[in-house]
Amino acid sequence: MTDLFTDEYFMKQALIEAQKAFDSDEIPVGCVVVCENKIIGKGYNLTEQLNDVTAHAEMQAITAAANYLGGKYLNECTMYVTLEPCVMCGGAIFWSQLGKLVFGASDDIRGFVKVGNALHPKTEIVHGVLANEASELMKTFFKKIREK
Amino acid sequence: MTDLFTDEYFMKQALIEAQKAFDSDEIPVGCVVVCENKIIGKGYNLTEQLNDVTAHAEMQAITAAANYLGGKYLNECTMYVTLEPCVMCGGAIFWSQLGKLVFGASDDIRGFVKVGNALHPKTEIVHGVLANEASELMKTFFKKIREK
Repeated sequence: MTDLFTDEYFMKQALIEAQKAFDSDEIPVGCVVVCENKIIGKGYNLTEQLNDVTAHAEMQAITAAANYLGGKYLNECTMYVTLEPCVMCGGAIFWSQLGKLVFGASDDIRGFVKVGNALHPKTEIVHGVLANEASELMKTFFKKIREK
Repeated sequence: MTDLFTDEYFMKQALIEAQKAFDSDEIPVGCVVVCENKIIGKGYNLTEQLNDVTAHAEMQAITAAANYLGGKYLNECTMYVTLEPCVMCGGAIFWSQLGKLVFGASDDIRGFVKVGNALHPKTEIVHGVLANEASELMKTFFKKIREK
């Protein structure tokens, strides 16, 4: 029997969140946190609507997941996020002791990888899952912004 | 006439916030954000009570200050925080384009400075203000924890 709950499956859920950001004129990044194949936290970028630089998709998903679990550590969880987390979100992921991070498109400007921001040593990292879909959504967004 | 609103004056307000964290059995870090000599945002560490690794003093103070201003950039503001911000908070401070950061004690383990996490190029940084007071509060806290 084929496993339904693949990384691609959950990344599609993160892309649905990213589309919500897009539809709200926010930079389209979406995130879900999964524990035992169940989505226990999700979020999409809300920095403009909330006037809050900390309102990244990942930050909201971490807070929601911890709230669901009643504990602040996400070592049994996997985060799916459409774009490589920034330094701030990388720092939050470190503190959460996340079990596994799966991201789509890379971010060579403000992503945590390039600046050498280390996650928790136990956090497994997978990247490039549905990266093209995430990149296309970003490109379409910035094209829309420029044409405004 | 002596200037009442010195860095020490506002750091004392941040220390008052840190004491609130201490009294709540949280690692004692406190923060205030000041604009035109007025405190427009403040916070103290609430990670244990809220079960949320993102609930650092600085994150709450940034959100509160931006909410007060109705805009997400803090380029006209100064943040006073008793301990050197971590990588996560350094990332948030970067996004906020903070005008000036004043911190007390250094954090050689998870502070943003040592890992080379750069703030916004326009952010002025001052450190060591009432550092002994902040350090003493931390030491007393960890002594209390060990004795429990």
